[in-house]
Amino acid sequence: MDLAPSPLAVPFPDMPAIGGVTLRVANARYKDWGRADLTYAELGEGTSVAGVFTKSACASSEVELGREQVKAGQARALIVNAGNSNAFTGYRGREAVDQIMEQVADHLGCAPSQVFVSSTGVIGVPLPKDKAREGVAKALENEPCSWEDAAKAIGTTDTFTKGATATAVVGGKTVTLCGIIKGSGMIAPDMATMLGYIFTDAAVEPAFLQQLLSAANRETYSCITVDGDTSTSDTVLAFATGKAGNHPLSGFGDAGADAFAAALSDVCRQLAQLVVRDGEGATKFISITVTGAASDDSAHRVGMSIANSPLVKTAIAGEDANWGRVVMAVGKAGEPADRDKLSIAFGGVWTARDGLPIADYDEAPVAEHLKGKQIDISVDLGIGEGSATVWTCDLTHGYISINADYRS
Amino acid sequence: MDLAPSPLAVPFPDMPAIGGVTLRVANARYKDWGRADLTYAELGEGTSVAGVFTKSACASSEVELGREQVKAGQARALIVNAGNSNAFTGYRGREAVDQIMEQVADHLGCAPSQVFVSSTGVIGVPLPKDKAREGVAKALENEPCSWEDAAKAIGTTDTFTKGATATAVVGGKTVTLCGIIKGSGMIAPDMATMLGYIFTDAAVEPAFLQQLLSAANRETYSCITVDGDTSTSDTVLAFATGKAGNHPLSGFGDAGADAFAAALSDVCRQLAQLVVRDGEGATKFISITVTGAASDDSAHRVGMSIANSPLVKTAIAGEDANWGRVVMAVGKAGEPADRDKLSIAFGGVWTARDGLPIADYDEAPVAEHLKGKQIDISVDLGIGEGSATVWTCDLTHGYISINADYRS
Repeated sequence: MDLAPSPLAVPFPDMPAIGGVTLRVANARYKDWGRADLTYAELGEGTSVAGVFTKSACASSEVELGREQVKAGQARALIVNAGNSNAFTGYRGREAVDQIMEQVADHLGCAPSQVFVSSTGVIGVPLPKDKAREGVAKALENEPCSWEDAAKAIGTTDTFTKGATATAVVGGKTVTLCGIIKGSGMIAPDMATMLGYIFTDAAVEPAFLQQLLSAANRETYSCITVDGDTSTSDTVLAFATGKAGNHPLSGFGDAGADAFAAALSDVCRQLAQLVVRDGEGATKFISITVTGAASDDSAHRVGMSIANSPLVKTAIAGEDANWGRVVMAVGKAGEPADRDKLSIAFGGVWTARDGLPIADYDEAPVAEHLKGKQIDISVDLGIGEGSATVWTCDLTHGYISINADYRS
Repeated sequence: MDLAPSPLAVPFPDMPAIGGVTLRVANARYKDWGRADLTYAELGEGTSVAGVFTKSACASSEVELGREQVKAGQARALIVNAGNSNAFTGYRGREAVDQIMEQVADHLGCAPSQVFVSSTGVIGVPLPKDKAREGVAKALENEPCSWEDAAKAIGTTDTFTKGATATAVVGGKTVTLCGIIKGSGMIAPDMATMLGYIFTDAAVEPAFLQQLLSAANRETYSCITVDGDTSTSDTVLAFATGKAGNHPLSGFGDAGADAFAAALSDVCRQLAQLVVRDGEGATKFISITVTGAASDDSAHRVGMSIANSPLVKTAIAGEDANWGRVVMAVGKAGEPADRDKLSIAFGGVWTARDGLPIADYDEAPVAEHLKGKQIDISVDLGIGEGSATVWTCDLTHGYISINADYRS
């Protein structure tokens, strides 16, 4: 099934090279296609790594291994397989991952545990070891490629290629961050994964990199949803090669740590929002801001309850400022709320305040806002200081077509 | 918007009269329509009542009052307004409910707190007090009507009329239970409520009736979902008039208590399943049984994670035995599970066992099963003794059409 590009697609940005990172791709023929589907990122010695992974209890071998590997904090390579998620494949899937790690480690002369592997695609088919071996062998030798080539090669049925970049000044040195990502919830039948990778030439101690990535994750990847369906393979990895020559960052007391943290969050936010823009069937990008909650965590849960509500998402698809459905989604969130203090705005125009609809609000700018591609919903709970912003897309016939009008 | 009857509709059953219950309906013109939209059930003196209500933090005044009223355990009347949910209407909505309670209490010579009120329909418009007063006045005087008339009058955009009945022998007396219900999650734009009422001539003490209704609720209404969107007004009330003349039931030690509990659960299960059969856009009724879980509660949460997964529901709409999506939904449930002990069956045929797909399972009976209107999914987690069964419907273009191709 070939999908037209999302109406919310944006062009791939200009992304500079990162010292200590060399990208190569190959066609392992995981599916019967002519495109590159195996991506290899070679990382310089001394590269720090941090990661966040799906909380799924049925995670793939790649995720189980990755959770362990990041604890040591050192990486020399990343391999990404596209077209087969290798999830729910038991010991045979695990063997394929072990083989890849050993093959790359032999080539680089490093420990297999410094080779990170991700896979995305169909569930339940063990990654074919012969195809993986040949594909890795080719990738190790192929000419280096661009960020866009690598971003394309990690994609499955993504409808556009996704990257983001930022810089920060750390101890007088300018450091660069480049990130690529694929997925949009479950972007196509049996294709089930968001994979994101951020590379930087900054020197950052592994523990601090993990701290920063975990914090960025809470405000970015954890704030997006397409359909509420969490993949068995979601993975975000950050690699810091140290080639910029800054004094290694080890905590917020270090000069430039704040700037680096902000740049990392910026890249993560851009990447996360790109995934929403490629949400299955999406025609509108929806930003939901919750204020006045009992806590930030509570605001986040209320925001996700709204963002996951099929009735709110179909209302936006229908360009309907249906605040009644927002009330419903607030009410079902299981968080502290007071019906008679609740206020709701679309595009900055309050349509309900303090538990009552505003009978004479100006409908024209609200109707105009809902016709656009970027929809802002604001909810004030009126009971505390907690706030959060989350992002989602609308729910359309396109989602049903992609997921139901199809037989595996 | 007029909807065709659900392909899963069933005929309204023959339902006998219940001693102590008199039904009347009237047209209060809550909307501009010719149909009855106000239902009045007059209950004999000494009628016990029990109730379960939405957990929404943004519940309607009707629900807030009802939660208090059931504590006293006595009811003389029920009024149901259809076409306006009176939710999110602040003090003005509350005034309308108070007026109805007083008007009916004056007529019957009882306390206003013994008059139960429910409303269903558009959110955010205070129930018009003049229409309510005239409608109640008519309903108090109109000729008694049938169960089917009452079940029709409580409906909003339900596509078929829903009732269920059962009998039990209690202390040598045959007691009868009759129930009516409306809704299917959020059955139409801004129509947001499941309302269910069970009437019996059995004599049951209020506290025991509440205990039985709460237990039945956990195994019936709490086990259905259409879209995971919980209404602000969901209500189930059970009324026991005592006219059958049995010695009042006050606990499981009483003769016939088990039989009555089973009959109550039976009626509740039938009513709950009827709501799923009228799910928005539904073309298939899906039964999901989870076994081998850490506990019954855990099994229930895993079942609901599967039942609420848009990807599982669209797969069933596409007649696709997509067990990979079931794995995903188990994994995201946040419950104890072991990927390598998980087994999944469709229509009784195991397609994955102990964490691995069964390569050579017989696809023909599975494909045949998925073409039908009643789909059975079995999931064995293989780690404990907990089990649960939940019910849902598929997610189709019809759901999007009903909820997005429409402007309020």
